[in-house]
Amino acid sequence: MRASDVFDLLRDGQPRTRAQLAEVTGLARSTVSARLEALMRLGLVVPVEGVSTGGRPPALLTFNPGARVVVGVDLGATHARAAIADLDGRVLGERGTLLDIAEGPEPVLAWVEQIIRELLTEQRRPVADLVAVGIGLPGPVEHSTGRAINPPIMPGWDRYDVPAAVQRAFAVPVLVDNDVNIMALGEQHAHLREVGDLVFIKVGTGIGAGIISGGALQRGAQGTAGDLGHVQVARASDVTCRCGNQGCLEAIAAVPAVAAAVRAAGVEVPGDHDVVDLVRAGDKAAVQAVRQAGRDLGEVLATLVNLVNPSSIVIGGSLATAGEGLLAGIREVVYRRSLPLATEHLQITTSRAGERAGVIGAAALAISHVLAPESIDAAVDSGANVVELGVRAR
Amino acid sequence: MRASDVFDLLRDGQPRTRAQLAEVTGLARSTVSARLEALMRLGLVVPVEGVSTGGRPPALLTFNPGARVVVGVDLGATHARAAIADLDGRVLGERGTLLDIAEGPEPVLAWVEQIIRELLTEQRRPVADLVAVGIGLPGPVEHSTGRAINPPIMPGWDRYDVPAAVQRAFAVPVLVDNDVNIMALGEQHAHLREVGDLVFIKVGTGIGAGIISGGALQRGAQGTAGDLGHVQVARASDVTCRCGNQGCLEAIAAVPAVAAAVRAAGVEVPGDHDVVDLVRAGDKAAVQAVRQAGRDLGEVLATLVNLVNPSSIVIGGSLATAGEGLLAGIREVVYRRSLPLATEHLQITTSRAGERAGVIGAAALAISHVLAPESIDAAVDSGANVVELGVRAR
Repeated sequence: MRASDVFDLLRDGQPRTRAQLAEVTGLARSTVSARLEALMRLGLVVPVEGVSTGGRPPALLTFNPGARVVVGVDLGATHARAAIADLDGRVLGERGTLLDIAEGPEPVLAWVEQIIRELLTEQRRPVADLVAVGIGLPGPVEHSTGRAINPPIMPGWDRYDVPAAVQRAFAVPVLVDNDVNIMALGEQHAHLREVGDLVFIKVGTGIGAGIISGGALQRGAQGTAGDLGHVQVARASDVTCRCGNQGCLEAIAAVPAVAAAVRAAGVEVPGDHDVVDLVRAGDKAAVQAVRQAGRDLGEVLATLVNLVNPSSIVIGGSLATAGEGLLAGIREVVYRRSLPLATEHLQITTSRAGERAGVIGAAALAISHVLAPESIDAAVDSGANVVELGVRAR
Repeated sequence: MRASDVFDLLRDGQPRTRAQLAEVTGLARSTVSARLEALMRLGLVVPVEGVSTGGRPPALLTFNPGARVVVGVDLGATHARAAIADLDGRVLGERGTLLDIAEGPEPVLAWVEQIIRELLTEQRRPVADLVAVGIGLPGPVEHSTGRAINPPIMPGWDRYDVPAAVQRAFAVPVLVDNDVNIMALGEQHAHLREVGDLVFIKVGTGIGAGIISGGALQRGAQGTAGDLGHVQVARASDVTCRCGNQGCLEAIAAVPAVAAAVRAAGVEVPGDHDVVDLVRAGDKAAVQAVRQAGRDLGEVLATLVNLVNPSSIVIGGSLATAGEGLLAGIREVVYRRSLPLATEHLQITTSRAGERAGVIGAAALAISHVLAPESIDAAVDSGANVVELGVRAR
């Protein structure tokens, strides 16, 4: 118990002596030394080298984020990205590819295994240096078990044991979450570390939200919190959604619906996602359709603002890259429909982390598991070395 | 620092020895003794009396919830209640009265002061035994400052410094929150301690929600989270709300709107709240109107379920006491409109704490402030006695 207290003090990167740590924690000097020895065995803490004040050097100790690595994986409907990062979340290397999630878990997770090996090799890290993997999936995920539950666009994935499959290749903790949840974590980690009430909205093939409230990602009781796409909106009441219900936001404001609206105006749209290029090129029908999608999103976001009261709403996904129209439509409705007090300090912006939000967030998710006080204390108690760090009942 | 660690171990009510506490915390024995001395000076920890195993009795120590008291106050639109409780949240005495919040802060807070004195006297407690006051107000509250911000039904209260006013009579921390937030805390404290994802809905003169997610009350960035009443619903689009907007849920589903609907059907309803009695008496128009209010609420709650994914929705407020109609209407829409995964294990029930939810929650709010680790550690560091416990910068 309590090695985590010592570690948390060092995690800011500032070197400290044993005496300083004993004083701040109130722990006995012998206890601090034992904790530090365990943390050094785990590789998380190292002596600062080359520091000398003349005579005997003070034994300064510090957090060693380069000790080991994690990999964050972001699986979308039609793309996949992965990044290798140190224990501070700094991205060391990255890969991306087109990959159809509907091919099913075996081929997709075979790619994940292969790419993890490539990233490790590229960084000249042995497999033993990998301590955790974070994965985002484009559907509802039961975070506690790492399984997708009835995911609409992921045939073959329903209740598939993702952690077990990845752990056949790498015996490390595998944390799985909804792709929008990891994007919210990634945007926060990369650009909004001080923001505790943040909602990330992804508008692509589907629509979803990752909600960080009171500083913590909110998954809800079954892990389905933030399901914006299947909220009912009045303008969609006659439209049938791919989920089988009528009136879902996704059925009128996601990329396929926007593409359909542009086609209905007589404009040729080869693939649904080409609508983004049409907007950038200034096509009038496409610009109007995206603006309307923004207004429709705004209807649901106005409700979200009243219910959740975030200080920042970040819009990501492919439609967010189509220019200011989407954002303008959202702002127009949210500022008209939400409570004045809730919108007074509300920022609505597009994602700065962009396409990298997912992998940064997946890495952050993996790190927060490995470096959680319970993980560290459990590893210390069991006399583990860094390879086993965080390997415990999930 | 860290006296709170020792205290948290004792808070379960189980007596322990100094040796046990030193072992579990890993603190030096001398440190544990110093911490315990400070906690005993605060009155929070006491030796267990009358325990002897023959010879020298083991010095068993335990949490002493009766050391001091808090008062929880629930101010509604037209009523007020207050309860005095021990540090475990057990209610020792209670008062209620009709009181119009629109009379303004001075007369209402004069009642609060008087009732706190009466409750203390009744329990034969000196004023010095009071360590904190929790207050719920029927409007948006900036929790960090304890002020109501633009509250629609509270003329004279806008930005009024409630803690400062109460502290002129009692020099203790005063925690102020929205009335529905404290009801959520009260229902959880009294009946759902193991439930971490709970939404409490109050349907009375107004409509609001208190949202507990991931185990914590979610207030949002400005403290306006849970504002259900001013969410736009399609059926209300032609109705002007008292807030000035059109289409608010409150304008068609709160008690005044339900009473108006019953009057429109030709039934005499002397006062708005008499509609509750009409429903209980089986009046057909009243029963239908409440059922429809339930459906309208259900529209917004279906969205809330998709966004927040609670495991329990608790319906309170006067309209919840009108029988099963409101609940039936809510369930009908929520189970049709929300995601199957989100409703699979969802409980929708009426409040069991009922009228007492507010005062129980206000007391729990006060206790959680006084017994928070930071409060205890700050009190110990400053050498405070129990009277000053928790008195620190808020």
